[in-house]
Amino acid sequence: MKRTLLTVFTLGFVLVFGSLATAQTGDPLPSWNDGKAKQSIIEFVAKVTENGSSDFVPPPERISTFDNDGTLWAEQPMYSQLFFAINRVKQLAPQHPEWKTEEPFASLLKGDVKGAMAGGMKSVGRILMATHAGMTTEEFETIVKDWIATAKHPVTKKPYTEMVYQPMLELLTYLRANDFKTFIVSGGGIEFMRPWTETVYGIPPEQVVGSSIKTKFEIRDGKAVLVRLPELNFNDDKDGKPIGINLHIGRRPIAAFGNSDGDLQMLQYATSGTGVRFGLIVHHTDAEREWAYDRKSSIGHLDKALDEAQAKGWTVVDMKQDWKIIYPHEK
Amino acid sequence: MKRTLLTVFTLGFVLVFGSLATAQTGDPLPSWNDGKAKQSIIEFVAKVTENGSSDFVPPPERISTFDNDGTLWAEQPMYSQLFFAINRVKQLAPQHPEWKTEEPFASLLKGDVKGAMAGGMKSVGRILMATHAGMTTEEFETIVKDWIATAKHPVTKKPYTEMVYQPMLELLTYLRANDFKTFIVSGGGIEFMRPWTETVYGIPPEQVVGSSIKTKFEIRDGKAVLVRLPELNFNDDKDGKPIGINLHIGRRPIAAFGNSDGDLQMLQYATSGTGVRFGLIVHHTDAEREWAYDRKSSIGHLDKALDEAQAKGWTVVDMKQDWKIIYPHEK
Repeated sequence: MKRTLLTVFTLGFVLVFGSLATAQTGDPLPSWNDGKAKQSIIEFVAKVTENGSSDFVPPPERISTFDNDGTLWAEQPMYSQLFFAINRVKQLAPQHPEWKTEEPFASLLKGDVKGAMAGGMKSVGRILMATHAGMTTEEFETIVKDWIATAKHPVTKKPYTEMVYQPMLELLTYLRANDFKTFIVSGGGIEFMRPWTETVYGIPPEQVVGSSIKTKFEIRDGKAVLVRLPELNFNDDKDGKPIGINLHIGRRPIAAFGNSDGDLQMLQYATSGTGVRFGLIVHHTDAEREWAYDRKSSIGHLDKALDEAQAKGWTVVDMKQDWKIIYPHEK
Repeated sequence: MKRTLLTVFTLGFVLVFGSLATAQTGDPLPSWNDGKAKQSIIEFVAKVTENGSSDFVPPPERISTFDNDGTLWAEQPMYSQLFFAINRVKQLAPQHPEWKTEEPFASLLKGDVKGAMAGGMKSVGRILMATHAGMTTEEFETIVKDWIATAKHPVTKKPYTEMVYQPMLELLTYLRANDFKTFIVSGGGIEFMRPWTETVYGIPPEQVVGSSIKTKFEIRDGKAVLVRLPELNFNDDKDGKPIGINLHIGRRPIAAFGNSDGDLQMLQYATSGTGVRFGLIVHHTDAEREWAYDRKSSIGHLDKALDEAQAKGWTVVDMKQDWKIIYPHEK
């Protein structure tokens, strides 16, 4: 009896004090090197969660918004959604003999991506509409799920869902542990992201904001479906980001995270509110472990937002200096 | 020592079994009379929440959508948002001398609401754009909050926020207690609802879907704001409801609640999915305690959806028979 009691007591001691010790000394951001960036995040979270402090923000108002391409996952040498679209062009080509001579499809089918993109956003638009419309929303979900389960990044040969940034995954978890709601606000397609964001980032479909095409309600075989139309509904980039945030979330975020000039207006919007606010820019500075690009890059172009970050005191993450590892598989 | 142990044991017994008893006998829907409607709700919730059952739905997929006008709060003799708009016309009239002779404003200012509405949806549109645009989103939020805090319903003289249906408040709470996420999907203005839905229904702004006007991003005095423009962005009614659900939520609801033909497509969409689904129509049958209207009413017109409810086995709430009380103040 005595021995049992002692065992129970010891076990209780270990459980209680063991978990306290973890809670107190556990680093919520283990893949971040100690430095200004990490410190600024931890100080911001401490301020807004300290009960009774004048900076305290009630949990329902702890809204945080994250860009996706270049902020949560890699965007080089080209946005993943474009690789998806190119793959779809190849799959659909047998049904479209006219593409053999029609640009940008003809170049794409010959493997000349650069030639296909020569027409700029107009070419991208044609490729997106040809590959993202014409099916029901649920059919498109299946197409995306099938692709993302098997596709590999052309440079690293890793699945795209493993090209996410481990330090940012830790940041998402850390914010949610502090009663933040985490949202994606991306220029990418809303329906391209939703099929996998819950598994990969812990962000459910209803917390994903993105660009969209129009849909049409139909009854097919007695069942209600939505059919995707080849017509832009909303461009969730630049000015579109705060507009999309207001439409979908209806509150001004207290923290926003981006990596390019496409995120500038979102960061301005989040940090213009009253009380303590937090803006962060991921600066791609690591040519060895990831990519290094900013003012001269067309993908992830970071110029005005970098200047404004410095002027306004937003946190700028120097990927090379601030991140111990980049991808989860390096753990 | 023995006595202490006994006390602890007894206390534990009372705590454990006392709370079990409450959980088992407490009626989650006390304002609903026993009958088919109440039973159908409880059976549906039991089915989808029973672990291991083939009907089990994981919590993240327990999406429920509610119409607002006529489903969660009263919509007679006219939508509350129109009373708000008319009040705004009167307030803004001194800045618009031209309204004295311009319809529909001239009739409205003379107190002739019927005359003002003679122009149908075109008149309503003009009134909405003149009263809902031209300010920032945050200024509009304040305007709505100020109005709803003081305005009284023309018939009952109660605040509009007290003209909500107690049985539906219980239903919202019951669903959330069973890990459902509750959303509003209304033809009403998204920004007209968000300032008060969290307090009144427990539904946060990011779970409100509604009609909207366009907004424009601007920097004013160094701060980022969104300015409301007099241009329709989205009409969240009829076909628009499933489209809005897909855009904002990105999942097909497993349960939908409405009261008019404007909700028909939402109910078709929710109940067309695989697995157990639930559709419910609130039928206004109580001329004494509320209002009685359906097929011939222009507000809350219920005709096709009533036929389809019967054909498809959706639950039809007979307000007079099924609800013990209508409003919270009757408790």
